[in-house]
Amino acid sequence: MPTQSSSLPASDSSAPLTVMGAGLVGSLLSLFLARRGHSVEVFERRADMRQGGAVEGRSINLALSDRGWRALEAVGIGDEIRQVAIPMYRRVMHDAQGNLSHQPYGQDNQAIYSVSRAGLNRTLLTLAEADPRVTLHFNQQLAGLDMRARQLELRDTTTGQERQQPFRRLFGTDGAFSAVRSALQKTERYNYSQSYLEYGYKELNIEPGPNGEWLLEKNALHIWPRGQYMMIALPNLDGSFNCTLFFPYEGKHSFAALQTPAQVQAFFEEVFPDIVPLMPELTDEYFRNPTGSLVTIRCFPWAFDDDVLLLGDASHAIVPFYGQGMNAGFEDCTVLDQLMERLGDDWHAIFTEFQQQRKPNADAIADLAVYNFEEMRDRVGDPRFLLQKKIESRIAAQFPGKWMPLYSQVTFSHTPYAEAWASGQLQERIMRRLMSHIQTEADYDQPEVQALVQQEMAQRG
Amino acid sequence: MPTQSSSLPASDSSAPLTVMGAGLVGSLLSLFLARRGHSVEVFERRADMRQGGAVEGRSINLALSDRGWRALEAVGIGDEIRQVAIPMYRRVMHDAQGNLSHQPYGQDNQAIYSVSRAGLNRTLLTLAEADPRVTLHFNQQLAGLDMRARQLELRDTTTGQERQQPFRRLFGTDGAFSAVRSALQKTERYNYSQSYLEYGYKELNIEPGPNGEWLLEKNALHIWPRGQYMMIALPNLDGSFNCTLFFPYEGKHSFAALQTPAQVQAFFEEVFPDIVPLMPELTDEYFRNPTGSLVTIRCFPWAFDDDVLLLGDASHAIVPFYGQGMNAGFEDCTVLDQLMERLGDDWHAIFTEFQQQRKPNADAIADLAVYNFEEMRDRVGDPRFLLQKKIESRIAAQFPGKWMPLYSQVTFSHTPYAEAWASGQLQERIMRRLMSHIQTEADYDQPEVQALVQQEMAQRG
Repeated sequence: MPTQSSSLPASDSSAPLTVMGAGLVGSLLSLFLARRGHSVEVFERRADMRQGGAVEGRSINLALSDRGWRALEAVGIGDEIRQVAIPMYRRVMHDAQGNLSHQPYGQDNQAIYSVSRAGLNRTLLTLAEADPRVTLHFNQQLAGLDMRARQLELRDTTTGQERQQPFRRLFGTDGAFSAVRSALQKTERYNYSQSYLEYGYKELNIEPGPNGEWLLEKNALHIWPRGQYMMIALPNLDGSFNCTLFFPYEGKHSFAALQTPAQVQAFFEEVFPDIVPLMPELTDEYFRNPTGSLVTIRCFPWAFDDDVLLLGDASHAIVPFYGQGMNAGFEDCTVLDQLMERLGDDWHAIFTEFQQQRKPNADAIADLAVYNFEEMRDRVGDPRFLLQKKIESRIAAQFPGKWMPLYSQVTFSHTPYAEAWASGQLQERIMRRLMSHIQTEADYDQPEVQALVQQEMAQRG
Repeated sequence: MPTQSSSLPASDSSAPLTVMGAGLVGSLLSLFLARRGHSVEVFERRADMRQGGAVEGRSINLALSDRGWRALEAVGIGDEIRQVAIPMYRRVMHDAQGNLSHQPYGQDNQAIYSVSRAGLNRTLLTLAEADPRVTLHFNQQLAGLDMRARQLELRDTTTGQERQQPFRRLFGTDGAFSAVRSALQKTERYNYSQSYLEYGYKELNIEPGPNGEWLLEKNALHIWPRGQYMMIALPNLDGSFNCTLFFPYEGKHSFAALQTPAQVQAFFEEVFPDIVPLMPELTDEYFRNPTGSLVTIRCFPWAFDDDVLLLGDASHAIVPFYGQGMNAGFEDCTVLDQLMERLGDDWHAIFTEFQQQRKPNADAIADLAVYNFEEMRDRVGDPRFLLQKKIESRIAAQFPGKWMPLYSQVTFSHTPYAEAWASGQLQERIMRRLMSHIQTEADYDQPEVQALVQQEMAQRG
């Protein structure tokens, strides 16, 4: 560990690397760095979440998909996490009368996986701590960052004491409201944007049944699409579901419009009738749980010389509707690891290539996540949309390797997000042309429709 | 004047209005407010620029066009400013051999006007000061803003003393790096972006001739379009021209690449040969004058209840390539004045309508300004582009009231910027289709081209 207040020589390749933030991406990143032989000092503002009393600040469960799995497997904990992950093979839509419809996420056994954010973070921290090259420091708030002098000013939140901590290379993985990024933002000509949806979210809970059973279909992501708002539910291991209501801040149906328990109860009974009996604590939870906001953050550059690099939400926080926030952050780790493999100790090249490669993909998944909100809260309730999805999977099956639905490219492939988005837009235009000739799934086999499909595919080349 | 540290009652309609920032927009706004009968307290961070020694921080001259004129005329100083404004009827393009081409800005006598930023600002300040309802306070830096308590913390930059200043309604006209906006940015769910071009600018000077004459065509805006960079020049009253080089920060031809006087001299002689003899102090100025950056700032909301409102660059700073930054800020004043006329003392409605009406137009002119950079640095040097402009003015003459070139809508009309931009994009698509049939101006009169024009115009309805 470096001596306090001393400065590390720029050329010392044996100097430890510094990671600010031990959330999902920071703890995973420290493992990747350690496995390349580096000593890693990790500083985290919060207390060690593995000790009692830590408060959960964010959504309880997350959807892990292929990009995330690849990174977890690279550090050897794919199997361990798989034990505590619940596959969700399809969307189940609940209409206002409680009728269900559904849409598979992919082919055969393709699924996204409901995992506990806190559980996954704890596992990663324990794994990091077990590596002798990694040292974790909790309750360490970044109070200042002098990039020229390569010094952190850290405040111990338990004692209030501040100290200088030199660094040679700093990885900012401290989330959407990153303190490391705040320092970058003060540099000249920094590009930055924060954009909020006019929607907030509220977490609610569906309790397990009397014998710990799941009271909705377990292996599914449930959606109550209601046009201008929606609720979703993801399963937990204990038989409960974590629900999230995505709701406008203002307007006729909005957080502002529901001010009393009676109003909340009446509204849920009207629009989510099938779920009210499963939420005995609905109104208590509604007023006890905070209303979260939904922000997209974009910035550039992510690198400051070869000294500082932002990863994960610190550089590209997105809204949750594609289930890709964590997956994109984990993919950052995979990409950085590939660059370390290829470029060795040329950190300038690593940082430069990293931001050039990742920035367009981060922008694409940010756009996709906003786009998917509309799909989830509105289009999935439309029978024509579900028919289009069926037709599209018929095309994908008929032209293997030539057509992959956008959702599958994002979720079940490692195709860069920007490529997936571009190809998805192209496919969507084709689907719109085809759907004007299709009323039922059987129409797909009509000779004239097949001729059109062949023609479109030939034009795609 | 309110008593120090007292709080103004929210309902006191006779309480003075507070304007933070006495630049072009702030000083003009104070006049509009005073003419509606309000007392106005104006605070400005800088010293009074009418006293000697004030440093010019920004470009020396600006292009005033119809939106700006309308606002100046409303406060009665149109004629006064016209005396010191130089009409520029056309663009004059200088190629790398010193050959000239040109393009009129509009029809007949339509012109944009070169005015001195400082001169205009001084005139507005003097006019404001002459109004007994307006009080100007200089050297007053905004050190803090408590929106809930409606208190400003002002630091006197000459004494260093800080004091509390209550306000009832605060207008933030303190520019692109607005301190008022900084306070808004800290409120919940604030949307904000700052986006820099990878270009900077450098101001240079063309001296008057020996008898005070203009050494380039006086009544024109001069452009040296060079593809990836450009220089422009605007005339001043004393026979000089103020030149601005817009140049990449990095790359083969860039600020980074020109490090010595010899390099600057050689580069200018190669790419701007006709201007070098007119710039005897070129290399001195090049290294003495700062390199300015080019930022677009977007934010929302602009209003905080009926307490605070941002106007001008504070809410929508744009790059200078459409010559619309000041004009857009002045149009803000016109629009606010219209709303005061219509809505009286309902400030909540005034602020709400103002931001709803102006935000899409501010976004449009921000996009247009970036778009026009490419036109100025590249396309104006292309004979096909100049031919297209000629053809377009033929169409505009043939279909009066049905076609107005985009530049004219932005510069010589009061059409909201967003409408102008949408109609301009439509017209551009039509022009592209027509131009594929046109090689010379005479082709416009060919029967088949005329048939196409008639057909396109009929489709426009």
